[in-house]
Amino acid sequence: SSKRVAILGAGPSGLAQLRAFEAARQSGREDLPEIICYEKQADIGGMWNYTWRTGLDKNGEPVHGSMYRYLWSNGPKECLEFADYSFDEHFGRAIPSYPPRAVLKDYIMGRIDQQAIKKYIRFECPVRWVEYDDDSKKFTVTVTNHKTNTQEVEEFDYVVVATGHFSTPNMPFFKGIDKFPGRVLHAHDFRDALEFENKDVLVVGSSYSAEDIASQCFKYGAQSITISYRSQPIGHTWPEGMEERPLVTHFEGNIAHFSDGSTKGFDAVIMCTGYLFHFPFLPDELRLITENCMYPNNLYKGVLFQPNPQLIYLGMHDQYYTFNKLDVQAWYARDIILGDKVLADAKTRQADIKIWRDRHDKLDGSDEQNIDFQADYILDLLALIDYPDFPVREQAELFKQWLRDKQENIMGYREKTYPSTITNTMATELPKPWLEIKDDSLESFMSLDFVEATVD
Amino acid sequence: SSKRVAILGAGPSGLAQLRAFEAARQSGREDLPEIICYEKQADIGGMWNYTWRTGLDKNGEPVHGSMYRYLWSNGPKECLEFADYSFDEHFGRAIPSYPPRAVLKDYIMGRIDQQAIKKYIRFECPVRWVEYDDDSKKFTVTVTNHKTNTQEVEEFDYVVVATGHFSTPNMPFFKGIDKFPGRVLHAHDFRDALEFENKDVLVVGSSYSAEDIASQCFKYGAQSITISYRSQPIGHTWPEGMEERPLVTHFEGNIAHFSDGSTKGFDAVIMCTGYLFHFPFLPDELRLITENCMYPNNLYKGVLFQPNPQLIYLGMHDQYYTFNKLDVQAWYARDIILGDKVLADAKTRQADIKIWRDRHDKLDGSDEQNIDFQADYILDLLALIDYPDFPVREQAELFKQWLRDKQENIMGYREKTYPSTITNTMATELPKPWLEIKDDSLESFMSLDFVEATVD
Ligand SMILES: Cc1cc2nc3c(=O)[nH]c(=O)nc-3n(C[C@H](O)[C@H](O)[C@H](O)COP(=O)(O)OP(=O)(O)OC[C@H]3O[C@@H](n4cnc5c(N)ncnc54)[C@H](O)[C@@H]3O)c2cc1C
Ligand SMILES: Cc1cc2nc3c(=O)[nH]c(=O)nc-3n(C[C@H](O)[C@H](O)[C@H](O)COP(=O)(O)OP(=O)(O)OC[C@H]3O[C@@H](n4cnc5c(N)ncnc54)[C@H](O)[C@@H]3O)c2cc1C
Ligand SMILES: NC(=O)c1ccc[n+]([C@@H]2O[C@H](COP(=O)([O-])OP(=O)(O)OC[C@H]3O[C@@H](n4cnc5c(N)ncnc54)[C@H](OP(=O)(O)O)[C@@H]3O)[C@@H](O)[C@H]2O)c1
Ligand SMILES: NC(=O)c1ccc[n+]([C@@H]2O[C@H](COP(=O)([O-])OP(=O)(O)OC[C@H]3O[C@@H](n4cnc5c(N)ncnc54)[C@H](OP(=O)(O)O)[C@@H]3O)[C@@H](O)[C@H]2O)c1
Repeated sequence: SSKRVAILGAGPSGLAQLRAFEAARQSGREDLPEIICYEKQADIGGMWNYTWRTGLDKNGEPVHGSMYRYLWSNGPKECLEFADYSFDEHFGRAIPSYPPRAVLKDYIMGRIDQQAIKKYIRFECPVRWVEYDDDSKKFTVTVTNHKTNTQEVEEFDYVVVATGHFSTPNMPFFKGIDKFPGRVLHAHDFRDALEFENKDVLVVGSSYSAEDIASQCFKYGAQSITISYRSQPIGHTWPEGMEERPLVTHFEGNIAHFSDGSTKGFDAVIMCTGYLFHFPFLPDELRLITENCMYPNNLYKGVLFQPNPQLIYLGMHDQYYTFNKLDVQAWYARDIILGDKVLADAKTRQADIKIWRDRHDKLDGSDEQNIDFQADYILDLLALIDYPDFPVREQAELFKQWLRDKQENIMGYREKTYPSTITNTMATELPKPWLEIKDDSLESFMSLDFVEATVD
Repeated sequence: SSKRVAILGAGPSGLAQLRAFEAARQSGREDLPEIICYEKQADIGGMWNYTWRTGLDKNGEPVHGSMYRYLWSNGPKECLEFADYSFDEHFGRAIPSYPPRAVLKDYIMGRIDQQAIKKYIRFECPVRWVEYDDDSKKFTVTVTNHKTNTQEVEEFDYVVVATGHFSTPNMPFFKGIDKFPGRVLHAHDFRDALEFENKDVLVVGSSYSAEDIASQCFKYGAQSITISYRSQPIGHTWPEGMEERPLVTHFEGNIAHFSDGSTKGFDAVIMCTGYLFHFPFLPDELRLITENCMYPNNLYKGVLFQPNPQLIYLGMHDQYYTFNKLDVQAWYARDIILGDKVLADAKTRQADIKIWRDRHDKLDGSDEQNIDFQADYILDLLALIDYPDFPVREQAELFKQWLRDKQENIMGYREKTYPSTITNTMATELPKPWLEIKDDSLESFMSLDFVEATVD
């Protein structure tokens, strides 16, 4: 094929796209397009690359990473296990259900043939600008190559946007915060909980980042943690020293005022207020505009940009399922690009989008409904492609169990174990409470004496 | 005139350019070009807008501001006084020589007719991409208008780049810093010295930011401050609790190792390691490539981009002189754009650049030589334009006095006073030592009882 495909980003989504084509190549397929993947960072892995940097990176580009030291998976590994690459196969033995970041990263990357994949990737190449020409029906992609300090301009038939959407902070203003005498940061810039040892910390937000960063601060010795919610409290039973309050209204000096009239003084404020979809390299007519939700508008089958289906977005949904969902999306996108799948006409696509968006609008916002909805979406796509079947519904049930386990004990749920939906292997138990395991490195974690789970 | 001019940035440089055209208009000039100024922030002032934000701003754009709370001018105000707008005129009374940021900002902005100027400016409009077409000889400028969440694309005959060069951190890596258990930040993200109260702070770098941030940390109660230099120590006599050491080689946990073999534990590391010239919106053929120096290459008269003199750069030199130098550059640029000044041919321009670059290469790196060099540059430009003469040489002598005063007492030099080179008014004295004046707001500063300086 003389087609050319640009993949923007080499995180889990971009890598899934590269693997999808590689799988086709390995199965003897010959008419494959020419592929270039542009990646801002110096390595593959996307969000899973921990970086000590905050703000701007060594090349002056916005730092992508929002992960922090001591981050552990906040969902069971059994919910993201690949059908064709089990945890057993990777680690050679059973491990606990909630591994630290480095351990999970090791698994995800273990499946990738790095030699085969990396040759398509240009590192330290942030994409600057993408344009589409209506006459030639091609995209022009302009990147800055920081290794050579020059720009590169190339033409493509397809562009796959896989740049993630948990990197650009949504940072609200509260009256008086500009005069707060201490550190004010967004979750995106949170790195080391030890910085907040013995401090009174205010966490604003009530979703995953708030829950987990508050827990980290507790684990690493903050003096007190107050979580301030806008819509609803997280609602866990928090240990002594942690509490939830309604939304902060304003600050006076280091004193936060809350909407229930209460006040409290703080040393630091951590805004866990979510992320913006930010595509500074895309012109209006190519730019997805959405908030973080279960089914962004204008994406047919969740991936093809409706106004121009030569443009493909991966991983733009809010996430329960992650890696195997990204795989499914990438497999579908590949089949469309290869022409193996005939693209429905615009009207048909629009009708399909409407069905999903209507269902989406009827969701009651509960995790349980969201999980089933995302499972349905994955199954819908799976039916269209030759990706190995995997137990989507069983994983959905595990997600629901996870919700109950968190509810029961927020500081202890990471000690729970679940059976693999792929191999049936039961996860092993941590040898001591999560709160007491403070070194999260791969080496340290893998040298723990995991305990065979007792079946009850 | 049917010419169109884009000004990128509404900091002191961009504002100087707008004022230069406004001055022409007010003097009855009629054939003025159409001007649009694009500014990323929500207000004018550039670097002088203090922001509590770090990393990315509310629109997801890199935060421009590198200034911090409690920042005072680090040079005498007498060295940046405008010939046509004195401090006396603005404040109605004599004030000290080293005012806090807010006071200096008030002065700079006081001269600007905001109503006349602001109508040219589109706020919250980061420039995304600039292109030049060789055939039409026009630039296409693409910006994102965050107020409307749409892009704007316009054509121009001239583009004036006034986006500053003290915003994109140069952040070196030291072995082990990725595991440092505490905050690691660049000067660009430094905001409130109170965060470092009672802490052991490591400051890396030996230029203005290092000197001033170390002093701030001392003033606001850090437990100890160690300044680590690469080339040369700053060399002041530091108060107890402050010291200089040669370059850090690596970190082990919170312990820094220095090249003299010494070690010390720290709570935080502040990299005062300078800034990158970063123009992500410019293609290679339009992009200035330089380090921070007294005469960047490829800029004729310090402003016209040699490969394409329809492109103008303002404020790209390292700075002793600031605001009036920016004015002089903007006045010259205006005259070129208006055609009042005939542009020399490329060869003549190149010869002129070479003369300055040769002189530049012979500088010995001392502040004294740099100051005289910059004075010569300003005088060279002044001779070409009708900007009001100002006492460039006298201000140079004041700069040299400032160097000696800093050398004599780094924690006390801001108590020194100098006579205005414009009005001859002697600055008043601070009523108490700089170390004891901890509120730096405009109101608080202007309500101090300044002391008439005693002439010695
Ligand atoms: C704090 C945090 C914790 C998380 N924890 C978990 C977890 O425990 N389990 C889980 O399954 N998921 C977790 N996630 C979700 C995570 O986002 C996904 O697992 C996954 O990383 C998404 O993959 P992606 O490729 O779509 O995006 P990303 O991983 O974000 O990768 C995008 C890539 O695009 C690159 N890029 C961006 N802009 C440009 C540009 N202009 N030019 C070139 N390249 C560019 C980036 O450098 C990056 O490499 C977490 C997310 C966050 C923020
Ligand atoms: C910490 C610090 C302290 C300083 N203290 C002093 C001092 O005491 N005295 C002194 O004289 N000088 C000081 N300076 C120097 C200061 O840089 C100059 O005084 C002055 O601000 C330079 O003006 P400028 O307009 O060239 O750049 P800036 O003031 O940096 O303004 C550039 C403008 O361009 C905008 N911009 C950037 N990118 C884009 C884009 N893509 N699209 C649209 N707009 C964009 C920015 O938002 C900003 O408003 C200090 C600098 C720093 C970093
Ligand atoms: N592995 C881990 O341990 C881990 C840790 C952290 C994050 N993550 C992942 O990171 C992703 C992002 O999660 P997230 O929590 O950062 O974002 P998110 O799920 O989008 O949640 C955003 C939160 O910010 C709140 N918010 C937004 N604007 C606000 C305002 N103006 N004032 C007050 N509150 C405001 C929202 O409140 P409302 O409810 O009122 O809208 C919501 O609680 C998820 O995929 C998550 O799984 C994983
Ligand atoms: N008003 C105020 O009080 C105030 C305060 C701060 C800054 N400012 C202004 O801000 C501007 C920028 O000043 P700046 O000090 O940030 O930048 P700068 O003058 O460019 O100095 C950069 C410093 O970083 C050091 N450095 C660079 N790379 C390094 C590395 N890899 N390892 C160790 N050191 C390294 C340099 O050391 P070498 O000498 O070895 O190259 C130099 O000391 C100036 O215009 C200044 O006037 C003003």
